[in-house]
Amino acid sequence: MITVSVDNIREVAGLALHRASVPEEHASEQLDLLLEADLRGVPSHGLLRLSRIIRRIENGVTDPHARGEHRWRKEAFLAVDGQRGLGPVVANRAITSLIERAKVTGIAVAAIRNSNHIGMLGWYAERVAEHGLSIIALSTSEALVHPWGGRKAMIGTNPIAIGVPTGGAPFMMDTATSVVSMGEIHDHANRRQPIPPHWALDENGNPTTDAAAAKKGAIAPFGQAKGYALGLGFELLVTSLAGAAIGRDVTGTLDDTTVCNKGDLFIVIDGPQRDLQAYLEALRALEPADGFPAVVIPGERGRACRDQRLKEGVPLAEEVWQQIQVLAGLGAAE
Amino acid sequence: MITVSVDNIREVAGLALHRASVPEEHASEQLDLLLEADLRGVPSHGLLRLSRIIRRIENGVTDPHARGEHRWRKEAFLAVDGQRGLGPVVANRAITSLIERAKVTGIAVAAIRNSNHIGMLGWYAERVAEHGLSIIALSTSEALVHPWGGRKAMIGTNPIAIGVPTGGAPFMMDTATSVVSMGEIHDHANRRQPIPPHWALDENGNPTTDAAAAKKGAIAPFGQAKGYALGLGFELLVTSLAGAAIGRDVTGTLDDTTVCNKGDLFIVIDGPQRDLQAYLEALRALEPADGFPAVVIPGERGRACRDQRLKEGVPLAEEVWQQIQVLAGLGAAE
Repeated sequence: MITVSVDNIREVAGLALHRASVPEEHASEQLDLLLEADLRGVPSHGLLRLSRIIRRIENGVTDPHARGEHRWRKEAFLAVDGQRGLGPVVANRAITSLIERAKVTGIAVAAIRNSNHIGMLGWYAERVAEHGLSIIALSTSEALVHPWGGRKAMIGTNPIAIGVPTGGAPFMMDTATSVVSMGEIHDHANRRQPIPPHWALDENGNPTTDAAAAKKGAIAPFGQAKGYALGLGFELLVTSLAGAAIGRDVTGTLDDTTVCNKGDLFIVIDGPQRDLQAYLEALRALEPADGFPAVVIPGERGRACRDQRLKEGVPLAEEVWQQIQVLAGLGAAE
Repeated sequence: MITVSVDNIREVAGLALHRASVPEEHASEQLDLLLEADLRGVPSHGLLRLSRIIRRIENGVTDPHARGEHRWRKEAFLAVDGQRGLGPVVANRAITSLIERAKVTGIAVAAIRNSNHIGMLGWYAERVAEHGLSIIALSTSEALVHPWGGRKAMIGTNPIAIGVPTGGAPFMMDTATSVVSMGEIHDHANRRQPIPPHWALDENGNPTTDAAAAKKGAIAPFGQAKGYALGLGFELLVTSLAGAAIGRDVTGTLDDTTVCNKGDLFIVIDGPQRDLQAYLEALRALEPADGFPAVVIPGERGRACRDQRLKEGVPLAEEVWQQIQVLAGLGAAE
């Protein structure tokens, strides 16, 4: 790993996106999203993904100019055709419209199809909560997760993020409904380390601790039958409302060559706000269980990590940084 | 256990509610809810609860006549003061208003405070989906769940239900964010059986397999840190939007004497509908993993159980049935 300053990353990665014909405003949004993930210690959703994003543009399956076509089906229901745009570019515009509309109607929903990977959901949730509104954000992905009791991947990793204003820093939680991300399994495979039991099945649907075998198999839902029910509920809700592909028909979230046909759903609520600080403080002040240094509020560890890395720089895998430099035309691969 | 026909239960339990001054229409709604839980094999949310519901009316903390006061804060945001009414009576009227409004606006939300226990959330979700709309239903409860890494209960069991129309029978999932219900722990304590490890902490915050000790302690969130983040997110979202009590300030979900101050949140969406039958059929047809007879779609096992019990009768604990008969003035306790 090497440590690179935020300014340096912004400049070089911005150059790479510029060379890929991404308009400056869109490049900045895409970079913000990736950088925030690395800043918060979620490298699987960070700059690691830049080269794929650029290859998808080069291959014509992502349109860097598109912003998504908005159609209000009903007063508080926004249907978005992402027009193959960059995930955060399409998502940001949908959320801006939702915030404006929810202030009038109290709640509004955007159902998005035909957009690309929107990255760390919590990033959107946090910004909506900073505006004083609450949000439930859902997204689907290629089928990587097996139903509880089944042998084959049939469900996306289907994350949920929730954002709530608190009177202080916004509350934000963000979790996939799989027990672990496919990125984590790839990471174990790259380091030739075994994965823990109960994480995944191999391609024949048998439990495995071999990360390479798990890559071809299926990840377990988190929390067994309950997480399965939740992930499946999100799959049906999102794909049905967004008109997106479902289950094994979903493509384009993991490759460079196919159009991305998953769905995203944002529900933004402009309701009464409330000071939740005392309750959150009581949680933090709880005596921790054996083996835990403290009770942690979701989102806060990432935010502390972000504060530190903004000052001290962002650790990146050397090959990731090298790749970005090459994409920027800086020829570091020589 | 004894088996009682649905008609017989309806008649006797209806008499008990009539004696407690519950108007006939409200009695029928409350009974439907309880009966549906027993029919679907969820006795913890079934007729077991009738005696408490009646004692709460006698003690003046539940008003059997109230239906909830509706105020549209904004066009698609319904604030409901439950006026201490029966949970399903208040919830049903809120949902009826939401369905009507969502057909106009595309999405509508009801935030409910000052209402009683609304029972099995999935029941509401299923009926909304039968109307061709989707729903996310959330509810809070007294603090029974410890934060991940903490020693003390600070969060409700905070269930979620999702309903989605499918073109056939509606999809419905319904799960608490605790690893198990407090009812299940009481059931183990009554039968003097140990509980599995990792279910609960004792009153000092130490792991226990003693069900009696767990009753005084805290239940674990399901799925460890992920389930904790989810349950906490629901706690903040619901209580903040509903103006309900939070954490250890919540009362009246487990006793006979205190006003119930938890919150409920229903989000109803009138979006595009879609035939999801082929996907659900592919899930059912998957080869099951070792030790599983089949891949099960959430909600379907309960529905099959319901079909059977409608014909063959409902198994009830003898003391539950005896209690209902006494409450009906039939004097079976002699």
